[in-house]
Order: sequence, then C-alpha cells, then structure tokens
Amino acid sequence: MRILGIHADRVWYKVTKKTKMAEPEPVREDEMDNCVLLFATVEKSDEVTPELTVSSTVESVKLRLSRLGATRVMLFPYAHLASDLGCPGVSQWILKSIQSRLIEEGIETKRAAFGWYKEFEIKSKGHPMADFSLTVCPFAGGECDKSSKCCQNESKNC
Amino acid sequence: MRILGIHADRVWYKVTKKTKMAEPEPVREDEMDNCVLLFATVEKSDEVTPELTVSSTVESVKLRLSRLGATRVMLFPYAHLASDLGCPGVSQWILKSIQSRLIEEGIETKRAAFGWYKEFEIKSKGHPMADFSLTVCPFAGGECDKSSKCCQNESKNC
Repeated sequence: MRILGIHADRVWYKVTKKTKMAEPEPVREDEMDNCVLLFATVEKSDEVTPELTVSSTVESVKLRLSRLGATRVMLFPYAHLASDLGCPGVSQWILKSIQSRLIEEGIETKRAAFGWYKEFEIKSKGHPMADFSLTVCPFAGGECDKSSKCCQNESKNC
Repeated sequence: MRILGIHADRVWYKVTKKTKMAEPEPVREDEMDNCVLLFATVEKSDEVTPELTVSSTVESVKLRLSRLGATRVMLFPYAHLASDLGCPGVSQWILKSIQSRLIEEGIETKRAAFGWYKEFEIKSKGHPMADFSLTVCPFAGGECDKSSKCCQNESKNC
C-alpha cells in the first residue's frame, strides 16, 4: 500500500467519468476542510494479506494524524503511486475497510469515488510535516523498513 | 527519476520555510494556469548518468505534453515519491537542466523552489489523461520498462 499524504486546508473533488472498475453509486462530489488527504494506491502484494494491510495502514495513519494534530481524513483512491496495482475488488475492500476502521476510531473519514476519474482541488498547509509518504508492508505489518522477506527477495514473488 | 504529473487548471505555491538544502534565492511565490504540474523526485540512481536522466525526462515530458495538448510546465521538487533520494547538488542540477532544456524546446517552464517547504494550491482538470506517473530509467534512457540491467540486477547496485 502506497500513500501520499497532504495536510490540507481544503480538499474538494467531483467525479468526471467512469473507468471500467467504477463503483456504481459513489459520492459524486465532496469536500473537506482542515484534513489529511491520503492519495492511496493498493498494490498487488496487498492481496496476500489484505487484513494486515488494513490494520497496518490504520495504525500508521493514526500515528501520523496524532503528530499533525489532525482529526479528519479524505481517503482518495489514486492509481499513480505504484505500477503493480491490486485487482479492483480487493482494492475497494481494503479502502472501504480502512475508512470503516478509522471511523470506528473516532476519526471523521470520507472516501472519494473508486474507479472514477475525478477533478480535484487541494490547498495544502505547507508546514514541515504537511507532505509525507507511507509505504505499508503487507508481509511484515507496519511501515516498510526494507527488512521484510519481500524487500529482501527482489523477485517480489513472496 | 520519479514524476507525478497533474494536468491542472491552476497551480500556485509559496515558500514557507527553509530546509538545510534550500536554494538561496528562489522564486518565493508563483503560479501558472492551464499547465502540467510535475511533482519530481530525483533518486540516488540518477546520479550515475545525470545527463541521460535529463534528456530522457525531457523526451518523456514532451511526448506527454503533446498528447495532452499542453504547452506549460510547473516543475515542482517533491521528495515524497521515492525513498532513496539523490544528493541535493545533483538533484538541483538535474531539475534546472530539465527546465532549461524544456525552455529551449519552446515550452514555458517554471521551477518551484528547491529545498523549501511550500504551501500550494492545485486545481486539476480531471479528464482521463490528467493524472499520470513517469519513472525515468537513468541506465537505459527513456521510461522504465523493468528491462534495464538495474531492474534485472536484484542488488540494485548497478
């Protein structure tokens, strides 16, 4: 799971067009103020242990929110952070599960439409911790530290 | 070289704070309408053949601009697309060279401040080709197709 995070004053999006994997009844337009925008790419390797991907991502995001003093999340499916994408079914399951788990933790969390092209507007805060990336390891749990058997095995078939 | 590209109605940025590697006299605030925003991360591997990284990136960007019918570029240093960053000197040289080469090709190109935290605002266009990623291979030239000796070499020390 790859995430690019932006601590934002405001995020807005609106769906423009379906892809083949579009979810049928998305929220077509939405916005959020004072939030952390999480551009998220589910990778093929996340299909091995999707539950671990969800729990590890939720823990990493909670920690990051706490450091930022942020309480709101806009989870934004974004296929451009990795080349080896997970299949749409698992990817949606993972993103919806992350949303549910964050909401259970008391964090207001919106999820942008999966499988739709979207126009969007972002106003970032620009402080030293405002932009960040997270790579969650689906094998070891937690953030990638290059020590799991997957990173050791460059064939990536683990 | 990793690039995340966004075909945008408008991009604006303003520097907020220096990092240790801040360029001394940057353009502190700038904006551009109807352009392609290129978030760009120079990687360690780009130090081996920086000239090839520059020429390959320029060719890839030109091709993409032509497909998009776009004529303006905002090149935006962004350290969050890869983990193994190039050293600041080479990274700046590569980004400045890409800017110069694009300008020589008749493409209006601005370059956001290197080594400064920045607040920014983006309004993306949201059409099917509006968001894209490029990984330029510094060994083979051109975009990464996983066939160069670096991708083949598991140790990644090529």
